[in-house]
Amino acid sequence: MIDPDRFLSDLHKLRRFGAAGVGKGVCKGVRRPAYSEPDIAARTWLAGRIEQAGLTPHFDPMGNLFGLAEGPSLLMGSHSDSQPEGGWLDGALGVIAALEVARASRESAGPPISVVSFQDEEGRFGVTTGSAVWSGHLSLDEADALTDHGGNRLQQMRSVLAERSDGFVDPARFTGFVELHIEQGPVLDQAREQIGVVSDIVGIRDMNITFSGQQNHAGTTPMHLRRDAFQGLAAFNAALNDRLRNVVTPRTVWTIGHVALHPNASSIVPGRVTFSMQWRDGDPARLARMETIIRDTIADIAGQYALETGFGPMLGLEPVAMDATLRGALEAAAEDVAPGRWRVMPSGALHDATNVARLLPVAMLFVPSIGGISHDFAEDTDETDLVAGLRVLAGAAERLGGQARA
Amino acid sequence: MIDPDRFLSDLHKLRRFGAAGVGKGVCKGVRRPAYSEPDIAARTWLAGRIEQAGLTPHFDPMGNLFGLAEGPSLLMGSHSDSQPEGGWLDGALGVIAALEVARASRESAGPPISVVSFQDEEGRFGVTTGSAVWSGHLSLDEADALTDHGGNRLQQMRSVLAERSDGFVDPARFTGFVELHIEQGPVLDQAREQIGVVSDIVGIRDMNITFSGQQNHAGTTPMHLRRDAFQGLAAFNAALNDRLRNVVTPRTVWTIGHVALHPNASSIVPGRVTFSMQWRDGDPARLARMETIIRDTIADIAGQYALETGFGPMLGLEPVAMDATLRGALEAAAEDVAPGRWRVMPSGALHDATNVARLLPVAMLFVPSIGGISHDFAEDTDETDLVAGLRVLAGAAERLGGQARA
Repeated sequence: MIDPDRFLSDLHKLRRFGAAGVGKGVCKGVRRPAYSEPDIAARTWLAGRIEQAGLTPHFDPMGNLFGLAEGPSLLMGSHSDSQPEGGWLDGALGVIAALEVARASRESAGPPISVVSFQDEEGRFGVTTGSAVWSGHLSLDEADALTDHGGNRLQQMRSVLAERSDGFVDPARFTGFVELHIEQGPVLDQAREQIGVVSDIVGIRDMNITFSGQQNHAGTTPMHLRRDAFQGLAAFNAALNDRLRNVVTPRTVWTIGHVALHPNASSIVPGRVTFSMQWRDGDPARLARMETIIRDTIADIAGQYALETGFGPMLGLEPVAMDATLRGALEAAAEDVAPGRWRVMPSGALHDATNVARLLPVAMLFVPSIGGISHDFAEDTDETDLVAGLRVLAGAAERLGGQARA
Repeated sequence: MIDPDRFLSDLHKLRRFGAAGVGKGVCKGVRRPAYSEPDIAARTWLAGRIEQAGLTPHFDPMGNLFGLAEGPSLLMGSHSDSQPEGGWLDGALGVIAALEVARASRESAGPPISVVSFQDEEGRFGVTTGSAVWSGHLSLDEADALTDHGGNRLQQMRSVLAERSDGFVDPARFTGFVELHIEQGPVLDQAREQIGVVSDIVGIRDMNITFSGQQNHAGTTPMHLRRDAFQGLAAFNAALNDRLRNVVTPRTVWTIGHVALHPNASSIVPGRVTFSMQWRDGDPARLARMETIIRDTIADIAGQYALETGFGPMLGLEPVAMDATLRGALEAAAEDVAPGRWRVMPSGALHDATNVARLLPVAMLFVPSIGGISHDFAEDTDETDLVAGLRVLAGAAERLGGQARA
């Protein structure tokens, strides 16, 4: 039987490593970036808790910490590193919930569950770096060459764990991977629901686009003779919003988040603008249709405004569908724990599960983020929702009986 | 009688100070910012030419260089400093043309003409700094505290001329001020006209505007829950262009030239944008109507997009109408020199004449800028147009007979 109090107690103990504030009513957030002193201390404490639970702690060369059950087992977990100024739950919730489920299952001779806390999910050095290396998406040599904003090399940072680390864990010992995470968005909170069972992790397309016109004096250049790059950007944005209307679903998102005007002076007609165009959806065909619409709209606007265009390389991550069996177990457990108060939803954010899907069947579930806030000291979730998430995770483990792989 | 060859020869001699390139077919531009070594050398050379012309050279404490005729006289000129990478004509044209008109008038016992080259028109330290101090718009103490981008103080820079400088010239000795300048815009060049007689120097309004929404994760925040500051800016731009249509004239200009998004990252819904809104027109009433429309449109968009708004201080320069008598003399001379190939037009750019208008009746005339290009090494004007400008300036001087003030 899972023990909600023990789970919450462990969650609050983990919070003390890198705590941004201590005591009642003060900020709950943490500063626990990958390989920082609080991160290493937290992993050391976690390895002890894993051992006390009867599992075998195992650090791999990246600093990913596993708690291994004997024989084939279902893997559960997330990550315990945080953003430089992060929330207390984020990945920590999924790690401690996995620990409680594995511990309780062991105590009641249930199915074998292993636990993991991946390293550097928050991307101090890359993007979901620890699970990227474990899944073979990134080689250890490539990872070693990565540096953080302070110029520190990952190779140097991971060496503090060298003494305690063994090789990489063979993924063949796991039958699947289930990750509990906070939603990091407002959907569940606004709908007053407790659980989101993830259908897929959306794919991303991201590219820089440039409009070039003619830089000119903002006093002496009449409006009809201007080739104003900012006007092109604004017109593109309006036309794109209009044209996407019949193509997107309520889950589709697109964002112009970065804009660089040149020369960016109030008295000069902008001669050039480079901006980011990012779009996300669970359907690769829709991602491709959107790309066509974006490129066509750019060409049309360039013609209308006498601008030249440039495209940076397109970065892409494919959508990852969740495994039907694992997801079915989560859905059944969700209906049990929170009848009528759960939904199937996509994950708009990346997670370690994206990488692990290269190796294993994966599934994910969300609990609400109050106000949709994350990556912020103010991030929080009601205790009843935290416990609901734990119960769904445990219920799925029971249903799967440690045999996720058909 | 004016001597076009002597005029062109002096213009090319001045170009050698700070020349960006030398020889046939190479770039004609100059690097002659205020108080730089080439600027001081050019002013020293110019003082010699002034003396040779029988005028009295006079440096004031700012480094403005006058060439004074005896008794009441009409003042002509512009500035000989340049942008860090400037064109060879810009203000230099008006200075050398004034020198030739004054010299020729003196040789033929015509009306007395004085000459001026103002200092720092290009704003290394401020905005039209030399004429601003001479006209009393800026005190010498205020000017002394100004610094350039390199941290140099104006007080230090002007001290190199201290030995040679006398006090400020009494403006009462001048009957008016006429400035010849390149257009710095495309209007005359596109119309294949030779002369623009300036009706007024347009007024400017300039302010920073901020939209604040909610910074959010670009993957997990559905479109309908976003408060995206960039979307607000783009919508404002479209609505403003639409609403201004029935208010503006073909001379009115408005520009969003500076945009700063926050946090300006491709994966984050922008929570804030600050942008510059600048508009120019010759009619103060229209400038005020445009301000009302801008503020109303901001409020409407803020309501539609759930954004908060902020306004920086509004910087303003009032429109300056040209003196009717001086302008009439320029128009008559233009019809004489370039019949059917001149027009009355506003100046969209600021000039020293804006400041001098505080002291004296002023007028201006333009010659074409090839391709509308200025503040660039590529800036140029056909020699025939340069000479046409000189002839109109001389014709106006003759008509005014040194008695511009009625």
